[in-house]
Amino acid sequence: MTLHSRISDPHTDFFTDNKSSDSVQIWSPQITSFIASQVAKHRPMVLVTSGGTIVPLENNTVRFLDNFSAGTRGACSAEHFIRNGYAVIFLHRQFSLLPYSRHYSHSTHCFLDFMDLDDDGHGGLQTVILGQYEEEMRSVLKDYKRAKQENLLLVVSFITVAEYLFLLRDIAQCMAPLGSNALLYLAAAVSDFHLPPEKMSVHKIQSQGGRCLTLHLEPVPKFLTRLVKHWAPQAMIVSFKLETEERLLIPKCRNALKRYGHQLVIGNLLDRRKNEVILVQQDSESWIRVKDGELEDKLVTEVIGRHKRWAVKMKSSI
Amino acid sequence: MTLHSRISDPHTDFFTDNKSSDSVQIWSPQITSFIASQVAKHRPMVLVTSGGTIVPLENNTVRFLDNFSAGTRGACSAEHFIRNGYAVIFLHRQFSLLPYSRHYSHSTHCFLDFMDLDDDGHGGLQTVILGQYEEEMRSVLKDYKRAKQENLLLVVSFITVAEYLFLLRDIAQCMAPLGSNALLYLAAAVSDFHLPPEKMSVHKIQSQGGRCLTLHLEPVPKFLTRLVKHWAPQAMIVSFKLETEERLLIPKCRNALKRYGHQLVIGNLLDRRKNEVILVQQDSESWIRVKDGELEDKLVTEVIGRHKRWAVKMKSSI
Repeated sequence: MTLHSRISDPHTDFFTDNKSSDSVQIWSPQITSFIASQVAKHRPMVLVTSGGTIVPLENNTVRFLDNFSAGTRGACSAEHFIRNGYAVIFLHRQFSLLPYSRHYSHSTHCFLDFMDLDDDGHGGLQTVILGQYEEEMRSVLKDYKRAKQENLLLVVSFITVAEYLFLLRDIAQCMAPLGSNALLYLAAAVSDFHLPPEKMSVHKIQSQGGRCLTLHLEPVPKFLTRLVKHWAPQAMIVSFKLETEERLLIPKCRNALKRYGHQLVIGNLLDRRKNEVILVQQDSESWIRVKDGELEDKLVTEVIGRHKRWAVKMKSSI
Repeated sequence: MTLHSRISDPHTDFFTDNKSSDSVQIWSPQITSFIASQVAKHRPMVLVTSGGTIVPLENNTVRFLDNFSAGTRGACSAEHFIRNGYAVIFLHRQFSLLPYSRHYSHSTHCFLDFMDLDDDGHGGLQTVILGQYEEEMRSVLKDYKRAKQENLLLVVSFITVAEYLFLLRDIAQCMAPLGSNALLYLAAAVSDFHLPPEKMSVHKIQSQGGRCLTLHLEPVPKFLTRLVKHWAPQAMIVSFKLETEERLLIPKCRNALKRYGHQLVIGNLLDRRKNEVILVQQDSESWIRVKDGELEDKLVTEVIGRHKRWAVKMKSSI
C-alpha cells in the first residue's frame, strides 16, 4: 500500500465529474417539505449523518471500498436530539442502524426473541411481547410513534460517497434559511479516497489466473470548506474525527478546526469510541466519558448547549 | 485500475500466513455439538454461507474492501432448507440478513411499523401487533420458534475473508463424517483479492494533503479445490457465480465446474438475480425463473432433489 505525493488538481470539481445519480431528485421534495414544516413551528433542526460511505470499483457494483461504521453513534444521537426538542433529518447509509429500531436490530437483539405465541382466547394463537421485555419495547415504540406523528424525523438514505456529498449539499442548502437554528452533526464515516467515474470498470473486475489487482484511488475533496463558507454559512457545524492512534487524535481535531473554520470537532479513538469522546473547539478541549450506558445522552446534551450559545451569539452579531 | 500478470506464488499458504483470529476457537464447540446432535437424528444437513466478506486495509480497521451482498439469497434459502427437513449451519457476514428476522429487517420493513399501543384493560398501554400484520408475523414467529426448539439452525458469523475461510474449513471438516448427507451451499460473496497481513497498515491510513492512494491486492486462493478434494470429499458442493455481463455467465460457471470438479454451479446476473438463476452441472443447464415471490423456494426444492440423487449415487458406489 503506498501513498503517492501527486497532488490532485484542486480545480477538479467533484460535483461536475460525478453524476448526482437520482438520489437528490428522489429525496428533494420530501426534504423541502419537511424543512418548511419545521420552520413554521420554529423548531431547532439538526442534520445527523450516519454510517459509512462506499466507493464502488465498478459501475455495475460488485466490489467496493467501505468505511467501518454500523451507524450506532448517529442513530443513538438522533433519538436524543428528538427527545430534546429538535427536528432531525437522518441522512444514513442504507441498512445502517436507524433511530428506535436500532434497539432490536442486528443479530444481537433479534426482535423475534422478544415475542411469544399465546392463546388468543378463541382456540387459536396470537403474537405477544414477552412480559419481561414489554415495558422497554413500549417505551421505544411510544417514542417512535411520537416522532412519526409529530413529524420530527425524516429518514434519508445514501450508499456511495458521491450520493452522500450530493445529498449533504442539497440538505445543507435547504437548511441555510434557518440560519443559526440549524445544526449539522456529521457523524458519517466519509471515505477519504475514491475512484473517479472515468476510471471505474463498467463490469465486474475479473480475477483471471491468480493475478494481482492494483487500485489507484484519488482523494475525495474536502467538502467541509464549502459547507462552512457557502452551503450553510450560519449553521453550527460539528464534525467527527476517528483515529486509531491516541497521539494523533487531538492534533488531527485541531487541524480540522483550523483548516475548515467550523465550530466543533468531536474526536474519538476506534477502540474507546463507546466510552469517551473529546470535544475540541477553538479555545477549549473537554472529554466526555461514560462507563456504561449511552455516551450520546451526555454528548448530545452538551452539543445542544453549545448550539444554543452559538445561536445567541450569531443573532446578537447581526 | 490495473490487473497485473504477476502470478502469485502457488505455494503460499493462506492458512499459514493469516492468523485464524479467534473465530474458529469461539465457534468450534457449538459447531461440533450442533453437528453431533443432527447426526444422532439422521437429519440431512446443509451449510449455507451468506453475505459479503471484507478485506481490511488496516489492522485497526477503519477502511476495507467489500463485496456487494445483503444476504437475501442465503437467509431466504436457509428457511426453505429447514422447511424441507434439513438442519442448517448459517455462516453469515455479521449484520447481514438472517433467516426469519429478514422479513422485518432493514429500513423497508421496520418491525416497529407493524406494532401499536393499545389499552391494556387496566388503565395503561400495552404493545400489540397490528391486526393486518398479525397472521404473517405469527407464521414467521412459529417457524422461528420451531427452528430454535428443534435445534435446526445454528447461526455463525464472520467479518473478514480470512475468518470466512477458516470457519468454512472447520465446518466442512466437521461435516465430513456425514458423507453424502452433507450439502454445502456457498452463497456468500467471497472476495477474489485480499491484502496479506504483512502488507496491512497497522493504523488508519492518513489522507495527507490530497495525495492519491495505491493499493496492491493479491488473489485469494481458490479454496474450492481443497474443499472438494480434502475437507468434505463426499459432500455435495454447490457454488454460486455472480456476473454483470450475460455473455460471461455460462462460460464462467462451466469453468468453475471444470476447475474444481464439484457438483453444481448456480449462476446469476446482478440485475436479474431475484428473478432468474441458471443451474449448471457437468451434463446439464437449466434455468429457474420467477416473476414474483421467492425464487429460493423453487431453487432450494430443485437443489434438494439433486442432493438426494447425489446421496443415492454416492451410497450405491461404495
